[in-house]
Amino acid sequence: MQPSDHYRTEKDPMGRILVPKTAYYGAQTQRAVENFQISGRRLPRSFIKAQGIIKASAAKANMQLGMLASDKGKAIVEAAEEVIEGKWDDQFVVDVYQAGAGTSQNMNANEIIANRASEIMTGSLESYTVHANDHVNMAQSTNDTFPAALHIACVENINEQLLPAIYNLQKELKRKSVEFMPILKSGRTHLHDAIPIRLGQEFSGYAGTIESVYHQIEDCLDGLYELGLGGNAIGTIINTHQDYPQTVVTEICNRTNAPFRAPESMFSYMQNRNAAIRTSLALKELAVHLIKITSDLRLLASGPRTGLAEITLPTLQPGSTIMPGKVNPAILEMTYMVCCQVIGYETAVATAGTASQLEINVMMPVIAHTVLDSIALLSNAIPTLTAKCISGIQGNEVICKNWMEESLSLVTGLSPILGYDLASQIGNEADNKNITIKQVLQERGILTPELENAIDPTGMV
Amino acid sequence: MQPSDHYRTEKDPMGRILVPKTAYYGAQTQRAVENFQISGRRLPRSFIKAQGIIKASAAKANMQLGMLASDKGKAIVEAAEEVIEGKWDDQFVVDVYQAGAGTSQNMNANEIIANRASEIMTGSLESYTVHANDHVNMAQSTNDTFPAALHIACVENINEQLLPAIYNLQKELKRKSVEFMPILKSGRTHLHDAIPIRLGQEFSGYAGTIESVYHQIEDCLDGLYELGLGGNAIGTIINTHQDYPQTVVTEICNRTNAPFRAPESMFSYMQNRNAAIRTSLALKELAVHLIKITSDLRLLASGPRTGLAEITLPTLQPGSTIMPGKVNPAILEMTYMVCCQVIGYETAVATAGTASQLEINVMMPVIAHTVLDSIALLSNAIPTLTAKCISGIQGNEVICKNWMEESLSLVTGLSPILGYDLASQIGNEADNKNITIKQVLQERGILTPELENAIDPTGMV
Amino acid sequence: MQPSDHYRTEKDPMGRILVPKTAYYGAQTQRAVENFQISGRRLPRSFIKAQGIIKASAAKANMQLGMLASDKGKAIVEAAEEVIEGKWDDQFVVDVYQAGAGTSQNMNANEIIANRASEIMTGSLESYTVHANDHVNMAQSTNDTFPAALHIACVENINEQLLPAIYNLQKELKRKSVEFMPILKSGRTHLHDAIPIRLGQEFSGYAGTIESVYHQIEDCLDGLYELGLGGNAIGTIINTHQDYPQTVVTEICNRTNAPFRAPESMFSYMQNRNAAIRTSLALKELAVHLIKITSDLRLLASGPRTGLAEITLPTLQPGSTIMPGKVNPAILEMTYMVCCQVIGYETAVATAGTASQLEINVMMPVIAHTVLDSIALLSNAIPTLTAKCISGIQGNEVICKNWMEESLSLVTGLSPILGYDLASQIGNEADNKNITIKQVLQERGILTPELENAIDPTGMV
Amino acid sequence: MQPSDHYRTEKDPMGRILVPKTAYYGAQTQRAVENFQISGRRLPRSFIKAQGIIKASAAKANMQLGMLASDKGKAIVEAAEEVIEGKWDDQFVVDVYQAGAGTSQNMNANEIIANRASEIMTGSLESYTVHANDHVNMAQSTNDTFPAALHIACVENINEQLLPAIYNLQKELKRKSVEFMPILKSGRTHLHDAIPIRLGQEFSGYAGTIESVYHQIEDCLDGLYELGLGGNAIGTIINTHQDYPQTVVTEICNRTNAPFRAPESMFSYMQNRNAAIRTSLALKELAVHLIKITSDLRLLASGPRTGLAEITLPTLQPGSTIMPGKVNPAILEMTYMVCCQVIGYETAVATAGTASQLEINVMMPVIAHTVLDSIALLSNAIPTLTAKCISGIQGNEVICKNWMEESLSLVTGLSPILGYDLASQIGNEADNKNITIKQVLQERGILTPELENAIDPTGMV
Repeated sequence: MQPSDHYRTEKDPMGRILVPKTAYYGAQTQRAVENFQISGRRLPRSFIKAQGIIKASAAKANMQLGMLASDKGKAIVEAAEEVIEGKWDDQFVVDVYQAGAGTSQNMNANEIIANRASEIMTGSLESYTVHANDHVNMAQSTNDTFPAALHIACVENINEQLLPAIYNLQKELKRKSVEFMPILKSGRTHLHDAIPIRLGQEFSGYAGTIESVYHQIEDCLDGLYELGLGGNAIGTIINTHQDYPQTVVTEICNRTNAPFRAPESMFSYMQNRNAAIRTSLALKELAVHLIKITSDLRLLASGPRTGLAEITLPTLQPGSTIMPGKVNPAILEMTYMVCCQVIGYETAVATAGTASQLEINVMMPVIAHTVLDSIALLSNAIPTLTAKCISGIQGNEVICKNWMEESLSLVTGLSPILGYDLASQIGNEADNKNITIKQVLQERGILTPELENAIDPTGMV
Repeated sequence: MQPSDHYRTEKDPMGRILVPKTAYYGAQTQRAVENFQISGRRLPRSFIKAQGIIKASAAKANMQLGMLASDKGKAIVEAAEEVIEGKWDDQFVVDVYQAGAGTSQNMNANEIIANRASEIMTGSLESYTVHANDHVNMAQSTNDTFPAALHIACVENINEQLLPAIYNLQKELKRKSVEFMPILKSGRTHLHDAIPIRLGQEFSGYAGTIESVYHQIEDCLDGLYELGLGGNAIGTIINTHQDYPQTVVTEICNRTNAPFRAPESMFSYMQNRNAAIRTSLALKELAVHLIKITSDLRLLASGPRTGLAEITLPTLQPGSTIMPGKVNPAILEMTYMVCCQVIGYETAVATAGTASQLEINVMMPVIAHTVLDSIALLSNAIPTLTAKCISGIQGNEVICKNWMEESLSLVTGLSPILGYDLASQIGNEADNKNITIKQVLQERGILTPELENAIDPTGMV
Repeated sequence: MQPSDHYRTEKDPMGRILVPKTAYYGAQTQRAVENFQISGRRLPRSFIKAQGIIKASAAKANMQLGMLASDKGKAIVEAAEEVIEGKWDDQFVVDVYQAGAGTSQNMNANEIIANRASEIMTGSLESYTVHANDHVNMAQSTNDTFPAALHIACVENINEQLLPAIYNLQKELKRKSVEFMPILKSGRTHLHDAIPIRLGQEFSGYAGTIESVYHQIEDCLDGLYELGLGGNAIGTIINTHQDYPQTVVTEICNRTNAPFRAPESMFSYMQNRNAAIRTSLALKELAVHLIKITSDLRLLASGPRTGLAEITLPTLQPGSTIMPGKVNPAILEMTYMVCCQVIGYETAVATAGTASQLEINVMMPVIAHTVLDSIALLSNAIPTLTAKCISGIQGNEVICKNWMEESLSLVTGLSPILGYDLASQIGNEADNKNITIKQVLQERGILTPELENAIDPTGMV
Repeated sequence: MQPSDHYRTEKDPMGRILVPKTAYYGAQTQRAVENFQISGRRLPRSFIKAQGIIKASAAKANMQLGMLASDKGKAIVEAAEEVIEGKWDDQFVVDVYQAGAGTSQNMNANEIIANRASEIMTGSLESYTVHANDHVNMAQSTNDTFPAALHIACVENINEQLLPAIYNLQKELKRKSVEFMPILKSGRTHLHDAIPIRLGQEFSGYAGTIESVYHQIEDCLDGLYELGLGGNAIGTIINTHQDYPQTVVTEICNRTNAPFRAPESMFSYMQNRNAAIRTSLALKELAVHLIKITSDLRLLASGPRTGLAEITLPTLQPGSTIMPGKVNPAILEMTYMVCCQVIGYETAVATAGTASQLEINVMMPVIAHTVLDSIALLSNAIPTLTAKCISGIQGNEVICKNWMEESLSLVTGLSPILGYDLASQIGNEADNKNITIKQVLQERGILTPELENAIDPTGMV
């Protein structure tokens, strides 16, 4: 290929290379595009935004510390602000599956901002007034900024999307638990008859679990607030003003209103993706429990004629292309599938997490992709679950009552009076004769008011 | 500690060390005992037996090839035969979690056999006439014998225990599918009413899945038949007679009646535990499907009063310490838990499998432990499942029929005649009015013989 | 919203709904779009193509069997052909995370084809001459066609992309093993000095492993060739001509030139995604071994000055934004990350696989997404690995030789002559004095020609 | 079998059964022994002890509340104390893989204590004065006591063994980081030359990571302190004095000196094993990081002649049966394998965790086994790692220095002065000519004091 109306020549330490004339990115990005045609996927908007925040904040810090000339610095900040706003998203063209550490991702940002800043300063995209490495990447390395961008993106997504989503789910489950508290039903353990319970009590359990997981995910923020900026290549803070680490983090705090801080241990921050791994594990915890809850709801809603039918889910869409009139628990199934994916992503993160070698972990892009995608999937699925399913669930009081009154486990109430052994005999007799506990007591002529009261389900909840 | 009535002094390249006077193992084993007090677990009988087979076969091969003096060789063979029989199991004292590659495990066998062979030759345990490395381990390394022992143990356990267990399960599921073929019931998809099916058809699906997995596990044998003996340290067959590899494998084939052979690629055999990893993945496949089947059976058996109750499981033991008369699907739950463990073990194997470095994988002991334990757990759980659960399942024909006749999905039969849209309306009407499809047709005055026939469940299966 | 220039009204069994006037899909797709705003991802081209193949083949079969009027049938085939060609890809708008079983995905195809066929017949998109359910979906259900589409897509991608990619990788590794056979180097076990090996022998191990995995993935095709078409809702083949199953599969075989066939057990096919689960496990096996191989290559290429530097990788792009001149093993790291993802996807598949309930597994869309994405990622990553890394690897003969001559493990050659114990002493002495084995022999005055020959590395490989 | 000198007849609600005459357990335990011959493994000492604590505390609470006659209560407490001490460990005979929820495990404790208490009261083991269900299990169910026992056992093992082990590891890593701070070496990223770092800085990273994980595991205690005793069957607190829940937990707190408390949500506690799942995830986090650290140490210790050899590990045992004088990183490999197992166990726990259905999770025994085994393995492996490996590591200052001075990454120091592009050229030239950075500067005639200073490694750390 030759330089032409469509291509210009760029160079980097490897030599010359053609890039599209309209591209704001440069040579290193172009090499990465050519090297990595793998998934067609790119890191998400929140990550790019975080890259912009870091580049703007670094430039401001370097200007404050007298390391960066103010004309260049200002142009960098202006260009970085455009990245933050999303103006150059289409210029972030490197595949998720790229070189380890995310060097190409960082260079993509550096080159866009350098070229755009040069254009701002000179009016020409090809003036190279601002250098991608020397100016935009000043005091930085991929190794400290990539994880910092991941932390910033996670914090934003967790705080603004995921935690509110979980909170609202928990609130709605709580609200339904209150609504359903009057509905008595049979408990079931091992899917077998157990003593009575309130439908609202079951939902209170779901709410309680979600509340607990909410706090676990919230606790992950603490680790994500660590930004080891200034550590640059391996944590030794070279080629950098000594006040840079504190200055750049302060800039980011001001901008994001989040309490980012220097890491407890700079070298631990460089070596591992601790916080991302921990977040991923917490998301798995959430997924495990959402699988339980959605499985329960599918079971309770089973039917309408051939299942438990204790609750009715909102009707959303036809459920079968061949069986007319069928309605399925679509939202619950979708949520379950999202949870499968989140659990799978955690495996990917852990597999990448064990691959850290010496100063850094070079499997960062896949960690970033999967953790951020897990957060995004859950952040979209949970509000859908809450709004389109949970909030519209109806309890079927009559069906619940019917099941309950049939339950052989009502015999449990006899245990403190008659002892476990005799109560067991009565239970077995009811089972064998296919009659109720009460009928056994009648047949045996021992249906005293005390025993009748003891097997009254309303006294057991 | 001093040498005494209870301890004798042994030495190895590290120096002197005390071992119990009655111990047949020696210095290197003793060091491993002291170094690794981790789990208290040891590699299983089948592995020790396989070590014995290898040691006996190697000695025979070395004698045949003129490398090993016949008096020593015969004593080694005799001692190894005792190991094979299990006489020295209590002398295999190294923890599962030991040094990578299993050097201590190999030395444990070498030392027991050397000392016992010395005793056979001289009457004295402390004569050291036979050397653990020079004679017992002749032509061998841990790196070729440990995986060979693993392969031999896997082959024995799979052929003699696991495959027969799966075969019998499949046969019993098939037998039940025939027994249950007359029982009509409602199908359920998404746990919602679907068209009729035969209980026997459901069981034929279970049988079909298990048959398919049977073949997948059987196919793993091919890789396990590879024995890279002679490869010794890293595959280069040093310090070894050129005919040793073929000779020793022939000895093992003769003894085990199994078609072991030299590996396709000796260096691949040394580098990876391919066959064990593959076996572990096949066991996971089995576990995934056993979870599905046992979950289905628990659901079909749910009740007796508050669930589907389409089948009844054999009663084995009381199911609750507080709810008298309760009986639970104990064997199904046990099987499910075994599957959780098998799935977990596969994760352990894969994690260890990725850790291979250059010439060998040094995470072999954990691979051996988990693969063999998975085989053992399944080999015990599946016959229990077959005998104590599957074979005694009863189909509840009346209950099945009742559910079926209620199913709204009978409307599906109307679709080819009335079209999907009108059929859907009829289905919805039945649902809303809480009546049957037939009743809707009656109410609409369109219950023609053709339509009555179209919704007859017996015509749908 | 009201019908307008931009929207038309469609209806389905749930009632009326607006869809964009230009849309070829209809009401049920529109509901799914509104219900599932989760990931923004859709099932891939190969899946849509397979849906088209099934719809065309079903229409042909139904025409042959006299079930479908030929004018409608021909229009359906024409529309389906357009789907196969990719003309309507932008009309497939349902999120991957949708209702279980993929009903919306199937309806999306049905609606596009029905509307397009209606347009073909009448010139009007809104004529509804061809019905999505009654005609396009005739004899079908989501439950049999979704897995069939998955199988067809997997088969195409595996046969046309993945297997050739693996084959070429294996061939290239084999070629390099021949090229590198003259290069002697030190083996390393436990990352510690071991006896000599040829660089080509190491590569032959990689080639051998990949060859073995090739066959394992090839073996998955057998299960994927099962197409349970005609099983429709739950395997009972209702509302369907009795010859339909055979006829439709024959149509698909003719079109694809692949040996698809009816399943061994129709009910097993309906209940589980056996073949997809098995494929996913085989892809994990490949990933585990690619992690080993790429880790080895990164280790062998470590340096250039501070590592082993036994091989040199092709230079592709600058490796650091802060450390000038740095070049990293970019392609190997990318491959490793792809493997992390593939391993994670297998976890997602297994988690979804255990969720099968009774007649079907309703977690099919996430299984389809992850299995197909795994195949795609590997199909793209492996040729990149082969072309941009493996084929350009250079062996550094001098460096390899230098390491080898330093290795303490040359002492192994003395073992058969001097015995393990004395050889160990010599090895330890060399270590402690920081001299070579040969020097120890000289110092001890025992450097006979026999011993010198015994520690000659060229005699050990 | 007949009652005899060796067997006595026991009965439970299923009927009569023979148990060994000397057994303290009874009919239900005997059934479980016969039903579950799976693994030969039993739940560990810490779990049995916790069962004893619960039984003693429940009896005390029931006596205080006037529910249990004091003679029986006292005998129960005495028998339970014997269980706590370990006197009856050999009577706990139920396989880990038993019925879900652990009913047999609970009955095993109930029966032993009932029979032993009867013996205490009457002198006869067969007097049945104290009833296993009515008295020993009073106010309890398996469903509340099994998880409570798990929590108590986890708390004890984490507080007394695991956390101290982790603390000491962290302290030792910290100590080594101080010891190694004077040792300068080359950093390595992507296993390629990077800028200088101190060996102590690397170790400070390890210490920092372990400290962070310490707190994460410590945080798990909060959830484990929840004891839903009184919830009994399904959380509805039936057949129980209203003050029982508070009273029994207070008893347990007094005895254990741990801040146990009633759960935030009783129904969440009954439904899920939240705290155990969370603990298991935290243990996985620890395992992921231990894999990184032990992998690094194996790499840094690689050699002695053919690897990096920057550190030397303590010599513990011979490393090869065929290569004399070989010493391997045995303890690091053992630790890595333990981590593989812990990661695998987490998969087992999560798989079991998703299986919760309605009121309880019936996969509790496998959760208990795997979580407690993970804690035990780590509690044994980590002190071994600390004492036998970490504390004896020596830094090889000269080798570290030699590598560092060769590193091409020293060119990084030139970047702020010469710019990234020229610095890259210099780096590439050094690589191509196989000379040092300094030599390139000399050859180019630009080795000014400023530049010489800029590439001085001592200025970079």
